[in-house]
Formats: sequence, structure tokens, C-alpha cells
Amino acid sequence: MTQIKKTDTPELLSLQPITGIKVGTACAQIRQAERDDLALFELPPQSTCVAVFTRNAFCAAPVTIAKQHLESIAPRFLLINSGNANAGIGEAGIRDALNCCEAVAQLADCAPNEVLPFSTGVIGTPLPVDKISAALPNAFAALDAQGWEKAAEAIMTTDTVPKGFSVQKSIQGQPITITGIVKGAGMIKPDMATLLAFIATDIAAPTSVLQACINQAVNQSFHRITIDGDTSTNDACVLIATGQGEVTIESTEHVAFAPFCQAVTDIFLQLAQAIVRDGEGATKFMTISVEQGTSERECLDVAHTIAHSPLVKTAFFASDANWGRILAAVGRAGVDNLDIQAVQIYLNELCIVQNGGVAESYTEEQGKAVMRKKEIMVRVLLGERGNHKTMVYTCDLSHDYVRINAEYRT
Amino acid sequence: MTQIKKTDTPELLSLQPITGIKVGTACAQIRQAERDDLALFELPPQSTCVAVFTRNAFCAAPVTIAKQHLESIAPRFLLINSGNANAGIGEAGIRDALNCCEAVAQLADCAPNEVLPFSTGVIGTPLPVDKISAALPNAFAALDAQGWEKAAEAIMTTDTVPKGFSVQKSIQGQPITITGIVKGAGMIKPDMATLLAFIATDIAAPTSVLQACINQAVNQSFHRITIDGDTSTNDACVLIATGQGEVTIESTEHVAFAPFCQAVTDIFLQLAQAIVRDGEGATKFMTISVEQGTSERECLDVAHTIAHSPLVKTAFFASDANWGRILAAVGRAGVDNLDIQAVQIYLNELCIVQNGGVAESYTEEQGKAVMRKKEIMVRVLLGERGNHKTMVYTCDLSHDYVRINAEYRT
Repeated sequence: MTQIKKTDTPELLSLQPITGIKVGTACAQIRQAERDDLALFELPPQSTCVAVFTRNAFCAAPVTIAKQHLESIAPRFLLINSGNANAGIGEAGIRDALNCCEAVAQLADCAPNEVLPFSTGVIGTPLPVDKISAALPNAFAALDAQGWEKAAEAIMTTDTVPKGFSVQKSIQGQPITITGIVKGAGMIKPDMATLLAFIATDIAAPTSVLQACINQAVNQSFHRITIDGDTSTNDACVLIATGQGEVTIESTEHVAFAPFCQAVTDIFLQLAQAIVRDGEGATKFMTISVEQGTSERECLDVAHTIAHSPLVKTAFFASDANWGRILAAVGRAGVDNLDIQAVQIYLNELCIVQNGGVAESYTEEQGKAVMRKKEIMVRVLLGERGNHKTMVYTCDLSHDYVRINAEYRT
Repeated sequence: MTQIKKTDTPELLSLQPITGIKVGTACAQIRQAERDDLALFELPPQSTCVAVFTRNAFCAAPVTIAKQHLESIAPRFLLINSGNANAGIGEAGIRDALNCCEAVAQLADCAPNEVLPFSTGVIGTPLPVDKISAALPNAFAALDAQGWEKAAEAIMTTDTVPKGFSVQKSIQGQPITITGIVKGAGMIKPDMATLLAFIATDIAAPTSVLQACINQAVNQSFHRITIDGDTSTNDACVLIATGQGEVTIESTEHVAFAPFCQAVTDIFLQLAQAIVRDGEGATKFMTISVEQGTSERECLDVAHTIAHSPLVKTAFFASDANWGRILAAVGRAGVDNLDIQAVQIYLNELCIVQNGGVAESYTEEQGKAVMRKKEIMVRVLLGERGNHKTMVYTCDLSHDYVRINAEYRT
């Protein structure tokens, strides 16, 4: 499992188990015969669980069912399959998702609505429920506290590496552990377009606390990467608290809430950035930072206009310091009464735009030196309009992106 | 001039002169030594002229000057150069644009503000005013009623063909002529990102009538092609009425206004579609028609979400009937309370989505047959929400698009 991407902080050398949670994987041969494509999470009783789902109106059947089940009762199992999204096939998809929950419930002796289903893979092909049911006993047999890394592999589709992070922290002198895995959407993924994230911690917290935490963490992580502005039919992010550790956070007023929330946000951000780094055809990682806005919305509009621009993305792919494309993107982002004389744009530390045009100190050589780097910060100062700022993470647009997406189904 | 793109209607075999207008071109060697890169339009006295400009906050210097001049007095000359956008270089650009107007004014013995300047080409390089001034006498010497086709070539940047259309119509038994040329933005053009359109007619009409006409025509044409949602720093569209023909339209209440406006709109639409067909790396022409919306805005949001999706564009490039990508784009377009069961999506006559998923009657073979065509209509019925509809025109995303935009400055 050396493929698990790691950075200096906050994750450790391997994914840490979360007391009370077991994870098992199995091969259901949904799309390939040779790899695990099922992951099963068993949660201890008294766990709390919250989730954020895609806002796509054409959401997949498992999203519909997972939402319903989560509203009705605390889940005991999560069942994830890769290879098939169970999306775009109408009522049959709902029935298939329910049948999978039923199969888990029979083996576990629980109620079907105590199971949350998740699917990722091709759209429009009926889910092979029989294959999944047949493989479930193997997934149950494999349930293990150490199963996280195998699960990170089982949920992959066109991801090139499994992605997971762990952190152990001390909050008020007590240890907490947070572990999460994610499967990406590349830069933007075609019918495989799914972001699935499963994060668990051993603290005890009511649903309301966990919901406040996931809202903040998602807003600063998964909502800040551009999967091409896309929300797929299947996106889901789940946060679980097992309550089997030392720390209890009763309310968002609790002194431990802020540090806990920050630790969760840090993990979410690392998972989100790992998705961008594993983007389809991506060769560069760009952070778009927009500052001095009158609102976060304004900063986000500018950041997304830059991050979604195929012209900006191809320039980064070509290591071409084409500042005119960034300038034009800022200019068309719809900022009211933008004083272009006051706008400044930087690539890392290099000022490229000021006083309404290219910076006087700028040289092509400096631009090229910055653009050759693999990780680049585009920093836009809107000109003392306000104190709001935001960051968005994206990657470049390469030949491979077109190749992958044009040939995806061939 | 056989490269001028023509369709069956409404244009004729060659661009018709507009009584009173002369057009001259010359080679100023701005970016290439071997081609005309200056176009000069001389308008007769008593002409009326209106224009629509880019809304990009970082608009180019010639846009700023053209707006000011147009507000102050009726123009007598339009000066267009290709090869250099005169954008992104701050106050120096304003001075250079004014100097070009001054140079025209001296040769023509008119006031500098009777000249409108337009530039298209690379951003961030100072405009070579000396070269332009030196070539101006040749442009004056070349002024000719038949000069439209040469002008269509002179204003090109990375366009692969000159683009122009003419129509002659009878309104209330009297002939009118409309002729227009355009240079494109390919699908979306990098630093060359400019749409320039110059259209003239021989009717007589006050500015208010012409403004009402250009607003309608632009809204149904240039605002309906996706240059990647981009408005460049230099976009401009100019409509001129010389008043030297047989027809006078005093007000928008005049019985001839509607047919005149429709004829202008038709020319605008052909020019706009010609830009898409000449898009960077484009191999397919797609019309996105969204119907049954509660507002035009709602229809436009859906159409743009589809038309801007790199996933949809690459699928069309690959002739892959990947209906899941279109369905997902509709689902994330932000339509309030969209009833996905009621949505229908067609490729030409072929129903691909209904009842919340892929149409039962759909087969891959049918999908492939449609996708192999060069011109494809994507038709989305939102499900009897309302009577509004709109159309947007776009092209596919190919290997060549990335190549052209990655290598643009190399």
C-alpha cells in the first residue's frame, strides 16, 4: 500500500484504524474479474453519521436511498461498489439499490434501512445485484479494523492511486484519531464522475455537531476543487463518529469543537487536493487564491472563472506564462465596478499584472521560470474592495485529458 | 475569394457593396510581412452607426476609445488592425489608439473622434503605431466599394477562412442590401480572443432604431455562440446604416422595422455560426436547443451548461453517444425543482433520455449513427415547465484544440 499518497502533515505512515469500525472488501467482478470492487464498512452501535450528497437533479439511485435511510435511522453498514454507478436507469436502479441493502441486512441480521448504499462507475448499465450479493459473504468475512487501505483501492475507478489520510491529535489532552479515504473524479470524470469520501473519527458527538463539522469541512475542501464545476450523479461524502475514543463534544459551543473541526477540515482538504493531483491527464497542481473581495461569493466567482478556463488550463499545461489569459478571465468574472488599475495578479511571488496591464518589472524569463514548476499559486488581489478571500484548487488541461475523455468508452 | 463561407440563404455569391461605403486594406507588417493587416472603412456623411462592445472589465484601449468617440459624434472612418490587440498595456495603449485615429484624421481631413479604432491580435505588446501610420496612405488609396472581401481577410488572426455574408431583400417593395464580415474567436481564442463584426446596410434609420436592431440581433446570434463563455478584451460588433438606399425606417413602430430587423438578425446569425464552424480544432457543429423552460434565462443556463462541458464536447469529438454526460449536465444546471421524470433529451430525432434515465427504445447503434454526423442538434425538453426556449451553438473539443492553445505562443 505504498501507493497511498502522503505528505508531511498531518497523515501518518499508514491509515490508522478507528476504534469500533471494521472494513472488508471483496471481488464481485462487476467490471473487472481481478480486483476487489466491493467495500463494506461496519459501524458500532451508537455511532453518529452525517453525509453530504450531490446536488445534481439526476442523482443516482443509491444517493436517493442513502438519503432516505440516513434520515430514518443511524446506519450500521455502508456498502460501496465501484464499476457501476447505478445511475440513469430509472426505477430499476432504486429497486437494485434496495436489494443490495436487503442482502447486507440478511447477512448482518439488521434492518435494510440500517445500510447506506454507494455506487461509482459507468452510468446507464443495470447494477449486477446477483454478483454483489454473491460476493457479500466474502466482504463480511474480511471485516477488519485494518481494512481501510484495501477499501481505498476497492472504491477506485479511473483513479491511478488509492487516496487516504490519517491524523492523530491531542484535544484537551486526550487523543483523537481521524481517518479518511476518497476516490476521485480525476480532473473531471466522465460517466465515472464520482467523488466518494468516507471519513471516520473515534470521538463522541451528536449528529448536529457532526453536521456542523462536515458543512464547514466540505465547504473548504471538496467544494473548493474544480471537478469542472461539475457535481456528478453520485457524489457523496460521509463523516462518522464512533464515540469509542476519549473525547466527547456535546455541542458546537464546546471548547473542543473548533480544534476538532479544524482537524477534520485538514483531512478533507488533503483528500480533496489528492483528487486534483490525481486528475485526468493532470501535470500541474494550481492553487487559485483570490483576495480583497467584498464577499466570499465574489472571490469564488473570480477563482472559478480562472480555474475553469480552458485557455488558462492549456497555458499551464504548456508552461506558458500567458498572463493575458488570466487577466481576461478576471475581467470577465462579473465583478461589479472592478477597478482594473487596482488589480494585481501574481504567479507565486512574481507580479504579472498591475496598473491595468502587464507589470513593468515582469520579464518572460521570470514567467517561464515560475511556469515550469509543478505546483503554482495564482494569486489575485482585487484591489482593497474588502477583506474576503478564498482558495480553489485545480489542475491543467493536457492532451491526455482529451484522449482519456474521448476514448473513455472505447 | 472563394474561401468566403456561403450557405444557401440568405447570402449571395459575393459580398455586395453598400452604397456610400468604401473599404480599403493595406499591409502594415504588424505581425507578418506578407499579408494585409489593416482595414479602413469610409462611411458617407449622415450615416448612423451603433456598436456593442465586450463587457470584459479589462477591455482593450481601442474599445475604450471607440466607445468615447461613438458617444461624441457620428463616425466617418473605422480603422481595424489585426496582429496586435493593443490590450493589457495600460495608459500607453490609450495613447497609441488615439494616435492611430489622429493619423487617419490628418489624411482624411476630419476630426480624430470621427474615427473608431479596432484591434485584434496578441495581448500585451505595444501597438506599432509608426507601421500603421506608414501603411495608412495605401489603405486610403485602396478605398473601394468592392473592398469588403479583402477586409474580411485583413481582419483575420487565427481564423482559417474569411467570413462574410450579404443579403438583398425587398421591404415594402423597395430593395435593401445588408453586408457583413466577421473575424472569429475560433472556439475560444487565446490572446487573439476577439470577435469583430462589421455589418452595413443602405437603409436610413436614426440611431435609436439601429440600436434596437443591433440589440435584438446580437442577442440571438453572437450572444448565442459559446466562445467558452468568454468575452474577450476586444470584442466589438458594429452596425452601420448609410441612408443611401430606398428605404427609411423612422422608428421601431414602423411597419418595416420587424422585417428589417429579422434580415439583420439572419445575417448576424450566419456570421456567428461561421465563427463556430471555424472554431479551433472544431470537427463538429452542435446546436443546443432547450425548450419548455419557465424563462429564457433558465433555458440558457441549461444550454450553456451542456455547451461548456468538456465532457460533452470530448464525447462529440469522439462520436461517442455518451448520453450520461448530457444528462448529468442538465441535472447540474441549477434548474429549480426539475422533475427529472419529465425531462426528455434528443440527439436530432433520436430520443436518448426519458423517464429519468436512458430511453427504453434507445440503442447504441442508433446513437452511433447520429454521432457520426458533422452537424448535430441536442434538444432538451424540460417537461412542460413553460413556453420559453433558446438555442446555443457550439463545437466539439478535440486534440487540436489543446494543441493549438498549448502551442499558441511557441
